[in-house]
Amino acid sequence: MQLPSSLLENAVAEFAKLPGIGKKTALRLVLHLLKQDIAVTDQFGETLQKMRREIQFCQRCHNISDGKICSICANSSRQKDTICVVENIRDVIAIENTQQYNGTYHVLGGIISPLDGIGPEQLTIDSLVDRVKDDKVTELVFALNPTIQGDTTIYYIQKKLTNIPCKITTIARGIAFGGELEYADEMTLGKSISNRQPIHQYIK
Amino acid sequence: MQLPSSLLENAVAEFAKLPGIGKKTALRLVLHLLKQDIAVTDQFGETLQKMRREIQFCQRCHNISDGKICSICANSSRQKDTICVVENIRDVIAIENTQQYNGTYHVLGGIISPLDGIGPEQLTIDSLVDRVKDDKVTELVFALNPTIQGDTTIYYIQKKLTNIPCKITTIARGIAFGGELEYADEMTLGKSISNRQPIHQYIK
Repeated sequence: MQLPSSLLENAVAEFAKLPGIGKKTALRLVLHLLKQDIAVTDQFGETLQKMRREIQFCQRCHNISDGKICSICANSSRQKDTICVVENIRDVIAIENTQQYNGTYHVLGGIISPLDGIGPEQLTIDSLVDRVKDDKVTELVFALNPTIQGDTTIYYIQKKLTNIPCKITTIARGIAFGGELEYADEMTLGKSISNRQPIHQYIK
Repeated sequence: MQLPSSLLENAVAEFAKLPGIGKKTALRLVLHLLKQDIAVTDQFGETLQKMRREIQFCQRCHNISDGKICSICANSSRQKDTICVVENIRDVIAIENTQQYNGTYHVLGGIISPLDGIGPEQLTIDSLVDRVKDDKVTELVFALNPTIQGDTTIYYIQKKLTNIPCKITTIARGIAFGGELEYADEMTLGKSISNRQPIHQYIK
């Protein structure tokens, strides 16, 4: 695609670097910005630059934060003895949106995946182990994706925590609400049968 | 969706203002930028701001340009006596990509659409009429979308050009290559039969 201006070309190339945005979509976005006031583009650029420069990561749970400690860790009404271990920040946001969890989080920053060159030392596992020891954590809830890499990560962390009295759980796998039994894969359906639960849990 | 940081929230809001980008996609893009070096976000913001400030529109055809006259108008090998009239810059890019047209363009900046509050005075029609008179244009090719608004625009411009000896044509409508006859709408199929063409045009 030949563009009539090098300034346009550069702006389109910047947008097209973003994941999931191709050159045609990038052109549509740039032409949209071109129709707006100069102040709109200025604000757009400045907001992104400011965000990238000033954003911090919570020293305790490695979640995104405006300060040294994130709002969840700083919140005194949240249970500090329960930690939910997640892969990335998006998982924190997803679980927070359910409003079903009142403990704290720990963002690993990825999962152990030797094929992608990600080993335990690149993740925040050491700081998790320190937290479990220091904060007298009683339960560690793993909310990782059910893949081989996820299971490996759980196994590795579990090994690191032997001799520490801390309950280790994982979020329930099963048929999703609105899901149809006949289309569920065998593994999920099998797990949901073997982990069947007393009915009063859903009625209370 | 509750986000853990106001800096993140602002950046997501900026992306979500762009057309076709929702809050979830915006979050994915911002988290991607957050993983990159500071230099990447800086360049992203600066490129957009520079583009918005410095880009110019060709004084002759109103296409996007790096200077006062765009590269197409400045190109001496292009036929100045043929003008292709299009709605917006994206249409210029699309026609240029076909490499089938060697005249110049005129970007109207929209089409006459009273319902959207767009009248002829908001479009670059006057400058088009001036060009036709001054440059002794012999053919005006309309490449507008085949809607009532498009037809109204052609009719309006045609009226303005009475008494000026200039051929007025429009791009051919018909069955697209790869299109299936049975799925074509009646109007397109009807037009493509009434405007049938000698076969040697495709064989030469």
